[in-house]
Amino acid sequence: MTRMDHSNVSNVMKPEDTAELRQLYSDFESEHLKPLWTQIDDLMPVVPNPKAVAHVWKWSKLLPLAQRSGDLVPVGRGGERRAIGLANPGLGGRAYISPTLWAAIQYLGPKETAPEHRHAQNAFRFVVEGEGVWTVVNGDPVRMSRGDLLLTPGWHFHGHHNDTDQPMAWIDGLDIPFSYQNDVGFFEFGSERVTDYATPRFSRGERLWCHPGLRPLSELKDTVSSPIGAYRWEHTDRSLTEQLLLEDEGQPATVEQGHAAVRYINPTTGGDVMPTIRAEFHRLRAGTITPSRRDVGSSVFQVFEGAGSVVLNGAEHMLETGDLFVVPSWVACSLRAQTQFDLFSFSDAPIMERLNFARTHIENGDR
Amino acid sequence: MTRMDHSNVSNVMKPEDTAELRQLYSDFESEHLKPLWTQIDDLMPVVPNPKAVAHVWKWSKLLPLAQRSGDLVPVGRGGERRAIGLANPGLGGRAYISPTLWAAIQYLGPKETAPEHRHAQNAFRFVVEGEGVWTVVNGDPVRMSRGDLLLTPGWHFHGHHNDTDQPMAWIDGLDIPFSYQNDVGFFEFGSERVTDYATPRFSRGERLWCHPGLRPLSELKDTVSSPIGAYRWEHTDRSLTEQLLLEDEGQPATVEQGHAAVRYINPTTGGDVMPTIRAEFHRLRAGTITPSRRDVGSSVFQVFEGAGSVVLNGAEHMLETGDLFVVPSWVACSLRAQTQFDLFSFSDAPIMERLNFARTHIENGDR
Amino acid sequence: MTRMDHSNVSNVMKPEDTAELRQLYSDFESEHLKPLWTQIDDLMPVVPNPKAVAHVWKWSKLLPLAQRSGDLVPVGRGGERRAIGLANPGLGGRAYISPTLWAAIQYLGPKETAPEHRHAQNAFRFVVEGEGVWTVVNGDPVRMSRGDLLLTPGWHFHGHHNDTDQPMAWIDGLDIPFSYQNDVGFFEFGSERVTDYATPRFSRGERLWCHPGLRPLSELKDTVSSPIGAYRWEHTDRSLTEQLLLEDEGQPATVEQGHAAVRYINPTTGGDVMPTIRAEFHRLRAGTITPSRRDVGSSVFQVFEGAGSVVLNGAEHMLETGDLFVVPSWVACSLRAQTQFDLFSFSDAPIMERLNFARTHIENGDR
Amino acid sequence: MTRMDHSNVSNVMKPEDTAELRQLYSDFESEHLKPLWTQIDDLMPVVPNPKAVAHVWKWSKLLPLAQRSGDLVPVGRGGERRAIGLANPGLGGRAYISPTLWAAIQYLGPKETAPEHRHAQNAFRFVVEGEGVWTVVNGDPVRMSRGDLLLTPGWHFHGHHNDTDQPMAWIDGLDIPFSYQNDVGFFEFGSERVTDYATPRFSRGERLWCHPGLRPLSELKDTVSSPIGAYRWEHTDRSLTEQLLLEDEGQPATVEQGHAAVRYINPTTGGDVMPTIRAEFHRLRAGTITPSRRDVGSSVFQVFEGAGSVVLNGAEHMLETGDLFVVPSWVACSLRAQTQFDLFSFSDAPIMERLNFARTHIENGDR
Repeated sequence: MTRMDHSNVSNVMKPEDTAELRQLYSDFESEHLKPLWTQIDDLMPVVPNPKAVAHVWKWSKLLPLAQRSGDLVPVGRGGERRAIGLANPGLGGRAYISPTLWAAIQYLGPKETAPEHRHAQNAFRFVVEGEGVWTVVNGDPVRMSRGDLLLTPGWHFHGHHNDTDQPMAWIDGLDIPFSYQNDVGFFEFGSERVTDYATPRFSRGERLWCHPGLRPLSELKDTVSSPIGAYRWEHTDRSLTEQLLLEDEGQPATVEQGHAAVRYINPTTGGDVMPTIRAEFHRLRAGTITPSRRDVGSSVFQVFEGAGSVVLNGAEHMLETGDLFVVPSWVACSLRAQTQFDLFSFSDAPIMERLNFARTHIENGDR
Repeated sequence: MTRMDHSNVSNVMKPEDTAELRQLYSDFESEHLKPLWTQIDDLMPVVPNPKAVAHVWKWSKLLPLAQRSGDLVPVGRGGERRAIGLANPGLGGRAYISPTLWAAIQYLGPKETAPEHRHAQNAFRFVVEGEGVWTVVNGDPVRMSRGDLLLTPGWHFHGHHNDTDQPMAWIDGLDIPFSYQNDVGFFEFGSERVTDYATPRFSRGERLWCHPGLRPLSELKDTVSSPIGAYRWEHTDRSLTEQLLLEDEGQPATVEQGHAAVRYINPTTGGDVMPTIRAEFHRLRAGTITPSRRDVGSSVFQVFEGAGSVVLNGAEHMLETGDLFVVPSWVACSLRAQTQFDLFSFSDAPIMERLNFARTHIENGDR
Repeated sequence: MTRMDHSNVSNVMKPEDTAELRQLYSDFESEHLKPLWTQIDDLMPVVPNPKAVAHVWKWSKLLPLAQRSGDLVPVGRGGERRAIGLANPGLGGRAYISPTLWAAIQYLGPKETAPEHRHAQNAFRFVVEGEGVWTVVNGDPVRMSRGDLLLTPGWHFHGHHNDTDQPMAWIDGLDIPFSYQNDVGFFEFGSERVTDYATPRFSRGERLWCHPGLRPLSELKDTVSSPIGAYRWEHTDRSLTEQLLLEDEGQPATVEQGHAAVRYINPTTGGDVMPTIRAEFHRLRAGTITPSRRDVGSSVFQVFEGAGSVVLNGAEHMLETGDLFVVPSWVACSLRAQTQFDLFSFSDAPIMERLNFARTHIENGDR
Repeated sequence: MTRMDHSNVSNVMKPEDTAELRQLYSDFESEHLKPLWTQIDDLMPVVPNPKAVAHVWKWSKLLPLAQRSGDLVPVGRGGERRAIGLANPGLGGRAYISPTLWAAIQYLGPKETAPEHRHAQNAFRFVVEGEGVWTVVNGDPVRMSRGDLLLTPGWHFHGHHNDTDQPMAWIDGLDIPFSYQNDVGFFEFGSERVTDYATPRFSRGERLWCHPGLRPLSELKDTVSSPIGAYRWEHTDRSLTEQLLLEDEGQPATVEQGHAAVRYINPTTGGDVMPTIRAEFHRLRAGTITPSRRDVGSSVFQVFEGAGSVVLNGAEHMLETGDLFVVPSWVACSLRAQTQFDLFSFSDAPIMERLNFARTHIENGDR
């Protein structure tokens, strides 16, 4: 992205390179100062110019590495989680998938327990395959099954345990980079074991809150994050199915032709599930190509089922079940479905919206 | 309710009854004036002193009268609805159940149609028994079945048709008295027949919106009233059942011991279904007695199932399925369950809360 | 306003007048029921059809009557205030200027005190002429001077005292009719004398809050009503003057050509001063005629200075300083300024907006 | 800040250092992955552990360097501003005073113009001394004088010009680091000269908006940022003076004994002036010591007048007029006033509050 040409501008701000100027710049350094005029092009670009790059991680590579970690790395207090972060190649090798977001594959072997702790960072898990683990959130055991979104909002105690003889892997999403960068993190250890090894089919949060359009009279105070610990695949799947059926009937229901989608929400407000993270699920009919769009802020997608591709700033990447990709800020993104194509996604959009930085550009007729 | 005794007050505001004073009062009349000092006790009571009285209407009386209306009164354009309003005995014979609320029994014979119209007034229907009618709201046919709450928010076109060979009756709730009193009503005729005679099991609104914790990405703009046309009994029943089970497990879930309850909400905000009307459903375990409470604002209850009673300002009223009663502002109300006792309720609480008039007093140890 | 003609409608809802029908109607009465079909035209009009009528009260009549009350009626506990309410001729002789609003002229003789009390009703005073009274609101003495708006929001203790040897009169505005109708009123006596006879130029609330764009760090919690007890004429006057000067400079500033206006606001939210009452001040250049507009809800105006007229549903009323008029719901209203024309106004618009009943219609080219 | 000791924990997560493990870690690298367990202590600290350090910049050093820049560096298109950023010593030499905030001294020579541009970044200026410059914001010329806060919210065009024969310096505050880090920046060039060289005493925004408790009826739509371009010293000074006088009278007004303070607000909402930046002004009586407090998020102070010191994490720094210091996240901060001590401050608190990361700890009796 280049800046406007100033060749005709009479008064371009370019100081003469003199000894005095060099002395001035040196004196700036001594006093912990930096001129704006030498760095404005980098600091204040015409459009967002992310260091993070678009990138795809293949599930076929991730899962075996997680499995090998299961053999070599114990799980427990200290490291806390057998989680392997996706490190954006543009972000200097740090385990950040974007400047705001963390994404990892987490792996828990048969009968293992990940100890309880809590932190200011907001977290969720999404299960692309498998079952058998319960995550215990503020004492409420929550089953983790294929297609489910599980929340552990900031400062909720949580630990996990695998009740079965099979290992299980899933993805974690957090706002660790944002929290680290802005120095907002707090952390506290809890029990070394989960506080409740019960394995109920439905968590207490679901039993209280997952009745459409109904709110318990004992829970009238709005909460910052959703009180729902588990968003079940059966509901997500049914809602997307209905949207496509309604589209078939000629009714408004989908985002655009062939593209059904839902946002996971906090039922106390109708807004996003957590203050920093948005989560959605998208389903494309086979053959659908979504318009290329740019958004301020970054997002991550994981293919849940089906085959297709994503075009990111003009480059197409083929995608299969489990594959993850990141869309940095203002990168043009278009999805293409070969089969029915199901994708889970999460983003930092609540940050952008709450701070008034959100912008979107959708290209017309430029698929 | 009497006011403070002022017998010791030196300067009680009691003008001497002279000819001059009588002339002054007469001159006030001519100029369309009224002194405050002669009417403040009535106008500004120490606590709310409603003209509306607590009253019970028996379903066993209402239903036969509705049926006789079915024989004698056609349904159609002009009168619009075969609805019979419950007239609070304290409100001068007007068809107001309270100063803000309207409640009626509506009756539709086999194959009859109530024509479409719309109005600024907010409306809902609740079905205590029966089935077979569809209400068509802004073109979306909504099945009406036992235990369902059906919404027709302000300025939505709506008509009803009975698809069967059996009559059906239900209750209507509206804010007609409030709208009339404050001159906010608008009304417009629509089709003389309903615009869609389809009889789907689920309305389009339900198919889009009734998936717990999920919001269609095509519907991100918050709406003043709930986009859900039908709140189904199966969800209400299940949520109350879960609350009582959670209570059995020692978990927080009920409003108070033995008292499960839900509020119907607008999923776009987590708030009340309509700007002027709150709707709730309460279930008491057999033997439960709720603490006596006074609220600013009026509410109406209908027994859905079970037997019990209500104590209103100290007087007990026995209740059976279908019976309706009104609780005027600041009247003390306590429910007593002989069997498991299910009650639907609605109130003007959103008005009180939005205008900052809400207050509640719960008596301790005074059941 | 007449309803649609149904002469061609096949199924107009007109039951045959039979003995059976008469028996049915009689049985309705016994059971406290009323049919909708016989009263829908009145209850649910096509547009608001207020019983309140447009009316003007002349200050030249009001003030002498208030003065005569000063001679004949003591002020003190019991009657509480020497206030004379403006009774809308359409509202059956009750001291309601509209279904929601109360307006009165209040009069306090030399050295008199009106005792302290508080009530759920929201109140304000506006001073069209005079000075010398302090109103003491929750213990804070607030000077009352010409052109000032003084607030006493719901449940704030308040009393008044006249510090001078001259009487003073002003207008009161409250939501008494709304509160009475909806049974939301609470009332409590306070001191028989005001609790502080100090006569500071500025109240403590002003000293904390009346610095433009600045909020005390000790007062970060938003309040339901404005914490400003007095809105001074000098600020109102200057803001209107600036708007007209900006208009002269070709800058956007006025509501419409020749019409400057401000709304009094709660600085903690930017919204209306109290939950039920909006207050504004309007200034028209000589010769300005405002477009005829209809609003849902009622409003009251008092001429502060200048001469002009108002056209209400087509009828013109001449106006001088101090004159008050009411605009019932949906009555068409246009102001005409002979000289520079200053008017204070208040309305129930916050009720209409919070409950989603607000609507406005402005006529084009129909002045 | 060290983490909990786990020496007694049986299952500490420390994998054996084997060839297989090293191969696993190497394979992680190839696939752009990083384990959480090796970096969690850094990424998720027990309390915020900022890389930014507490630091003081002396005005006596800054101003001469700015003056030398005035001699050596032209102002104009390209570099845009003769602004010199304060670079936190802990942030690797970047011109960030904290992870979120930018602070700079800007210098404009006699008759110079800084060209117009706009950017998504939010900006303000604060004037510790001097006068003679007008900043033109969306075409509205705004005088800059001693003690004034001037806003240029995101995406508002703005340029500056010096109308006098004297140079002028002031400080700029922006959210450049936050915007850069999160890739939200947009930038657009405007006129090379300011679009209006008028030098009015008050900007149009002030003339519309700076009347306490009054809102123009032409401006009823809430705005994301404050519509007030200039917060004048006379108002700030008066409000602080009043708070201390009220304290003298025994009235609640100050934040704590001897500590008066105001927050600059957006009058359309009562909230912060811009979505990412809070601005406040504090005045301490001579001898006042504020309790040591830690806040999540970073803030910057500039001494406006008086002498005193700040204790940051236990280290005392002496302060004079114009000195600036930064308080990184969770650093303990206490102010000590030798004389009456006036300080301007700004922070990223709106970010922390909107995203639910705000926390404060105030030490008791530990001054």
